Amino acid sequence: MAGNTFGRIFKLTSFGESHGRGVGGILEGVKPGLELDMDFIQQELDRRRPGQSKITTPRDEKDRVEFLSGVMDGKATGTPLAFAIWNKDQKSNDYDNLKDLYRPSHADYTYDAKYGIRDHRGGGRSSARETIARVVAGAIAKLMLKETGVDITAFVSQVGELRMEEVPEDLSAIESTPVRCPDTKMAERMIDYIDKIRQEKDSVGGVVSCVIRNAPAGLGDPVFEKLHAVLGQAMLSINAVKGFEYGLGFKASSMKGSQHNDEFYTEAGKVKTRTNRSGGVQGGISNGEEILFRVAFKPVATILKDQNTVDKSGNEVVMKARGRHDPCVVPRAVPIVEAMAAMVIVDAWLMNKTYQ
Amino acid sequence: MAGNTFGRIFKLTSFGESHGRGVGGILEGVKPGLELDMDFIQQELDRRRPGQSKITTPRDEKDRVEFLSGVMDGKATGTPLAFAIWNKDQKSNDYDNLKDLYRPSHADYTYDAKYGIRDHRGGGRSSARETIARVVAGAIAKLMLKETGVDITAFVSQVGELRMEEVPEDLSAIESTPVRCPDTKMAERMIDYIDKIRQEKDSVGGVVSCVIRNAPAGLGDPVFEKLHAVLGQAMLSINAVKGFEYGLGFKASSMKGSQHNDEFYTEAGKVKTRTNRSGGVQGGISNGEEILFRVAFKPVATILKDQNTVDKSGNEVVMKARGRHDPCVVPRAVPIVEAMAAMVIVDAWLMNKTYQ
Amino acid sequence: MAGNTFGRIFKLTSFGESHGRGVGGILEGVKPGLELDMDFIQQELDRRRPGQSKITTPRDEKDRVEFLSGVMDGKATGTPLAFAIWNKDQKSNDYDNLKDLYRPSHADYTYDAKYGIRDHRGGGRSSARETIARVVAGAIAKLMLKETGVDITAFVSQVGELRMEEVPEDLSAIESTPVRCPDTKMAERMIDYIDKIRQEKDSVGGVVSCVIRNAPAGLGDPVFEKLHAVLGQAMLSINAVKGFEYGLGFKASSMKGSQHNDEFYTEAGKVKTRTNRSGGVQGGISNGEEILFRVAFKPVATILKDQNTVDKSGNEVVMKARGRHDPCVVPRAVPIVEAMAAMVIVDAWLMNKTYQ
Amino acid sequence: MAGNTFGRIFKLTSFGESHGRGVGGILEGVKPGLELDMDFIQQELDRRRPGQSKITTPRDEKDRVEFLSGVMDGKATGTPLAFAIWNKDQKSNDYDNLKDLYRPSHADYTYDAKYGIRDHRGGGRSSARETIARVVAGAIAKLMLKETGVDITAFVSQVGELRMEEVPEDLSAIESTPVRCPDTKMAERMIDYIDKIRQEKDSVGGVVSCVIRNAPAGLGDPVFEKLHAVLGQAMLSINAVKGFEYGLGFKASSMKGSQHNDEFYTEAGKVKTRTNRSGGVQGGISNGEEILFRVAFKPVATILKDQNTVDKSGNEVVMKARGRHDPCVVPRAVPIVEAMAAMVIVDAWLMNKTYQ
Repeated sequence: MAGNTFGRIFKLTSFGESHGRGVGGILEGVKPGLELDMDFIQQELDRRRPGQSKITTPRDEKDRVEFLSGVMDGKATGTPLAFAIWNKDQKSNDYDNLKDLYRPSHADYTYDAKYGIRDHRGGGRSSARETIARVVAGAIAKLMLKETGVDITAFVSQVGELRMEEVPEDLSAIESTPVRCPDTKMAERMIDYIDKIRQEKDSVGGVVSCVIRNAPAGLGDPVFEKLHAVLGQAMLSINAVKGFEYGLGFKASSMKGSQHNDEFYTEAGKVKTRTNRSGGVQGGISNGEEILFRVAFKPVATILKDQNTVDKSGNEVVMKARGRHDPCVVPRAVPIVEAMAAMVIVDAWLMNKTYQ
Repeated sequence: MAGNTFGRIFKLTSFGESHGRGVGGILEGVKPGLELDMDFIQQELDRRRPGQSKITTPRDEKDRVEFLSGVMDGKATGTPLAFAIWNKDQKSNDYDNLKDLYRPSHADYTYDAKYGIRDHRGGGRSSARETIARVVAGAIAKLMLKETGVDITAFVSQVGELRMEEVPEDLSAIESTPVRCPDTKMAERMIDYIDKIRQEKDSVGGVVSCVIRNAPAGLGDPVFEKLHAVLGQAMLSINAVKGFEYGLGFKASSMKGSQHNDEFYTEAGKVKTRTNRSGGVQGGISNGEEILFRVAFKPVATILKDQNTVDKSGNEVVMKARGRHDPCVVPRAVPIVEAMAAMVIVDAWLMNKTYQ
Repeated sequence: MAGNTFGRIFKLTSFGESHGRGVGGILEGVKPGLELDMDFIQQELDRRRPGQSKITTPRDEKDRVEFLSGVMDGKATGTPLAFAIWNKDQKSNDYDNLKDLYRPSHADYTYDAKYGIRDHRGGGRSSARETIARVVAGAIAKLMLKETGVDITAFVSQVGELRMEEVPEDLSAIESTPVRCPDTKMAERMIDYIDKIRQEKDSVGGVVSCVIRNAPAGLGDPVFEKLHAVLGQAMLSINAVKGFEYGLGFKASSMKGSQHNDEFYTEAGKVKTRTNRSGGVQGGISNGEEILFRVAFKPVATILKDQNTVDKSGNEVVMKARGRHDPCVVPRAVPIVEAMAAMVIVDAWLMNKTYQ
Repeated sequence: MAGNTFGRIFKLTSFGESHGRGVGGILEGVKPGLELDMDFIQQELDRRRPGQSKITTPRDEKDRVEFLSGVMDGKATGTPLAFAIWNKDQKSNDYDNLKDLYRPSHADYTYDAKYGIRDHRGGGRSSARETIARVVAGAIAKLMLKETGVDITAFVSQVGELRMEEVPEDLSAIESTPVRCPDTKMAERMIDYIDKIRQEKDSVGGVVSCVIRNAPAGLGDPVFEKLHAVLGQAMLSINAVKGFEYGLGFKASSMKGSQHNDEFYTEAGKVKTRTNRSGGVQGGISNGEEILFRVAFKPVATILKDQNTVDKSGNEVVMKARGRHDPCVVPRAVPIVEAMAAMVIVDAWLMNKTYQ
C-alpha cells in the first residue's frame, strides 16, 4: 500500500512488523563512497533501545542492523542500501489473547477497518518497532551531514506536567540521564515522576524539543514542501505523536506582530535576526538561525490496568492488564525525532544541489 | 523547483505569484463526469477574499477562476483540469521601495538566499495569494465528497488571547460573522479586539479549528502518510502557520494513559469510542469518529509600524510603515484550512479504492 | 488523472486539449536566474507548426507561448514556470459530425471506454496539439544545456520505404528542407513521395533518428530509470509512436556478441569505445559516446478516404472523408523528439548533482 | 540513488547485487487478503533460473524467495511486502581479475563514471540477477490478475536470424522447449543454433514477443504514462534490451494510413477492431483487443573469447576469456518480460479504480 516511502532524493522505503521476520528498509540517495560508520549506526540504534534503565521497559532487543546491499568494503556504492534488523523476541502466542480484541487507543480497530486483515502480534506494522528503520536511515543521514557541521539535537522538554520553558544553550547533559532532559535537576524530577507512573501501572505523555544548529539558509521547498511542513509530516508520522510546532508555535497565536516579528541585522556581512521567534524558518525556508521545533507525544495506550473495550465481533469485553509496559516512551523517541529531522535536512540539502 | 505538488492521486500542482499574470494550478484525479458547480467554487473563493468587512483589508480582488482545460459542458472530462485566477490589482511599482529590503519575518531574505533571485512584488510566490489555487482545488474536492456525506467545517477558535475551549456541537453560526467563530458572543469580542489591533497598526495571530464529520474508518496510509501526518503537512504548508495538533494535541502530553485512552463500545453493530481524545485518528487511520484538529497562525508580519531591518547589501535601515494591512488573517484562513483538509480526505479516499 | 507529469526534478506537468482554452504546463526544476530566450523558444515552436510547406497541413496556428508565472525581467525565478499557448482556431462545430463516431485508429473509443466521457473536438487531449507544451519545456531544457555543450539533433531518417541506413556525420542540412532529412537527395525523394501520398488522400509513417553529442558519461539511473528506458518512455509517449530502439536496436537481436561488443581504448586519458553499437549507453548509463536512438511513427490515422467504423451506440457507419489532413507528420515530430530528449538529459543531469 | 522504484500504486522498490547478501524488494499495492501462492511464485522463479538445459549456463542457483514482512498465514496483510532471495554462489574472489578491468559492453565503466565506486563482483547491481526481484513482484501481480482472466504470455520469437513472423494462436508449446518458442520446429532450429554459438564461445541476441489476452479497454494513462510508453520503459529497463515496439512497430513506419488503420465493428454489443495493427492500444489506452509487443535483446556481452579493453588506469589490456557463460539469455528473459508486463497491467488497473 501507499505510505511507506519518505523523502524525495534521500528516500527511505520501510518495511516490517513487530513479529514478522524483521524490520528494515531500502535507502536511496546515499552519497556514493560514504563510509558507513557501523559503530555510530549501532550507537544510534542503542539509543532507541528499551531496557536501558528503570524508567523503560526491561526488554533487551539487542537490535543489530544487517546491510543487505549497496555496501562494499564499508562504503556506500550508490546502489540502493537495503538493511534489516531481525526480530528476535517473537513469542507470537503471547498475543493470542489479543487476536480478536481492539485495544483502546491502539491501531487494532483501524487496521482491521482499512485492510480487512490485521497482524495482531505486538501491533504488527503499527508497533513502534517500525521506527528502528527510521533510526538507521537517520544515522546515515547524520553521517552525510557530518562534513557540513549541521548539528541536530533533540531532548525531552516535558513529561506530564513537568516542563522546561526554554531551550538551554548547553545541551551536553542530555545523554547523561535516562530521561534525556538537559536540565539535570528537572531530569531527576521527571525520572521520579515516571517511576511513580509505573507504580500506578499507568503511562504518561511528554514533549520532545529539537534544535538544529548550523543549518544554512535556503533549505525547504515552498509551497507544499516548506521545511517546517515536511518536518511536521515527519514528526507526526512517528508513533504516538499528537502535535508539532516550530518557533513559538501555538504561543504565536496569541501574540501581536510587533511582538513576534524578528528584526534583521548584519553581523560580519551575514544577515541575522536579533530574535528567533520564527524558529529558523521564514516562508518555509531556513534562514540560517537555529531551527527549533517541538513534538507532542500522548501517553502510550498500553497500561497495566483493566480496560473496557470490544472484540472483533462487537462484543463488549474487559481487557485484562498483562505483560510488559513502558510508562513513558518519550525519552526513547529522542533519537527517532533526530533521525527524521536528519532525513528531512539531508533531503532538502540534496534538492538544493539541483538548483545550482 | 520541487515542492509545488500536493497529493498522490487527487493531485494539485500549483503556480503563480502575487504580481505575475495570475495564480492557478493543474488538478489531476477529478472524477470524470463530475459536475463542476461554478457557483459553489466561486462561493468558496469569495470566502477567502479580503474586503468583506471592517476587520479585513479593503482590497476587493474579485477573484474569478477560469478553467483552461479538462472541462466540457460543465463536466470534468478526466483530463488534467487546469485553472487560473488572473491578477488584476497589479501596481508593481508600489513595491519598488521593497525591492532591496528584507521585511522582518517575511520570506524576502530566505527566497533570495535560496534562489539568488526574488520577485519582490507583493511577496511573489510567498504571498498568501498563492492559496487561491488551493481553495479552487479544495472546492472541487468538496464536490467529490458531496455524495459521501463527509462534512468539513473549520472555524476560528482563537484570536490573540481570546479562545474557545471546546468544539461546539452546533457550528451553524460560523459564516454569520466576519470572524468565523461559531460562538457569537465570542465572535463579538474577537471582532472588537481585531478592530483595536487595527487601530494600534499591529496584527494578531489566532487558531483555526477543524471538524470533519461522517468520514469513514480506514482513511490514511501508515507509516509515513498517516492521515494526521498528511493533514499536518497540508496545514503547515499554509502561509503563517506555526503549529498543528489533532485530538487533544499538546494537552495529551501532560496526561496519563488512563485519562487519555478512548474506550471502544458498539452501537447498532458499529464500533465506536465513548470519548474522542484521539481526534478521530488512531495509528494514523481514521476510526469513524469526528476528526478534529487545530492550526496555529502567527500574527501576519506586515504591520503599520516602522521596523528595523537590513537591505540586500546588508545595510541596516528603518522600514517605513505604509500601504494596506490585514490585522488578522485567521478568519480568511478558514476556507483554506477546509480546502486543504478536503484535498487530503479525497486523496486518502481514492487511495483506498485501490485496495478493494 | 494520472499520467500528466514527466520528469523527476526537471518536471513538466502538462494540460490542454485541441479545442479548450489552450494547452500548456507547469515546469519545475528550471535553474533560478536562467535567461528565458523567448526568440529561441518561439523558434522551436515554429519548427513544430504546421503549414510550413506543401507537405504539411495548411493551418497556420501561429502558436505563441505566454508565461504565467515564474519569470521576472526575462529570467526564471525558481518558482514554478507556468505557461500557456492559447487555442485560436476553434471551430468546434466542425467536429459535430464526429461527436458520436469512433474514428478508426484514433483514441476516440479508448477515451470513452476509460473516462466514460470524451471531448470529441479535434481529438481533445489526444490531439497532437498537446505536444506544444513539450516543445516549450524542451526548449527551456535546451537553454539549460547550452553551457554544457550537449547537442541534441533529430532528423527524419525514413518516410515510408525510403530510408537512410546510416547516421551521417554532417547534420547541417536538416532544417534546410521541409522534410528534415540531412541527406538532401533523399529529402527530395521523400518530399515527392509525401506529395504523392497527399494526392492519394492517404498518409504515411516514418522514422525519426536522434543523435546526442557531447553528453558526459554517467547519465541515467539504473535499474528502472536507465537512460534509454526513460528516453524510450519519453518517445513512446509522443502521439503515433510505435517503437523505440537505441544503438543497433532490433538489429542487435540477430548479431553475435563478438560482432556487437564495443572495445574500449583510451585517447588522451579518456576511456572511449572503438565502435558505438551500444548507442552511447551501457548498463543504462551514458558512456560519453554519441547517444543514438530511433523512433518509429505510424501513418497518421486521419486520411481523406471513406472508412467503415461504428458510432457510440454501436451502429456500423461509413465515416465520410472531410477536412484538413497532414499526409506525413514525421517531419513535424523532429522538434518534439528533440524536446523530450532534452528534458530527459537535463533531468538525468540534475539527478547526478545530488550524488556529489 | 534514484531509479529503483517501478510503478505508481503497485510499486516495487528493488535492491541487491550479484554478490552482496542477496537481491529483493519491497512491494506496495498488493491487495490485502491476497493468498500468496508460494508454489506459483517459486515456479516463476524457476523459469528464470539458469541451468535448465544444455543451452543455458550450468549454474544451479536454487533461488528461493523469503518474505520478510507483509504476510500472515500466507496472506498479504496490506503492509509493505518485503522479500529477499539470498545469494548463495558467492565466490567473490573469482572476480578479482575483473576488479580493475572495464569489460567491453558491460556496465563496468559507466558505473565507475557515475558513482566513482563500483562493486565489480559479478557485475554488482548491473547483473541480471537483479531481475529476480522483478520476477517475484511479477508473480504476485499475476496472482492479482488471476480473478480478472487477463493472461500474459511471452515467448521467444527470434534467435539470431531465426525468426517467427506471426504470433500463433496456439501458445501452449512454449514451456515444452528450453528455448521457449511456441513453434516447435523453429524451437529445434533455435536450440541447435544456440548450441553452435556456445561451441563458438560466442553469444547471440534475440527477440521476446508478448501477448496479453483479455485485458479490458481503458488501461493506460495519457499523456506521459500511456500504456505502451510504460510497457516500453518496463521492457527497456531489463538487462540487454535494445528496442521495444508494439503492434506493427517499426513496420508501421513504412505503411500507409489506409493499410494500417483498424476498422471498428460491433460484435455482441462490444466494439471491436477487424484487424489489430495497433497492437491493442490506441491513444495510449488499451482497446480490449490483444496487446502485442516485441522486445529486442542484444547478444550478452560475456563471451569466451579474448577481447581488447582498458583497465581503470586507462591501460589497454587483453581480457582473457574465462568462467561460465550463457550463449543466449533470451529464453530466460521470457518470465522477466511477463513479470514486468504483469506489473504494468496491475498498476494501470489499480489506477483505473480511482476514477470510479
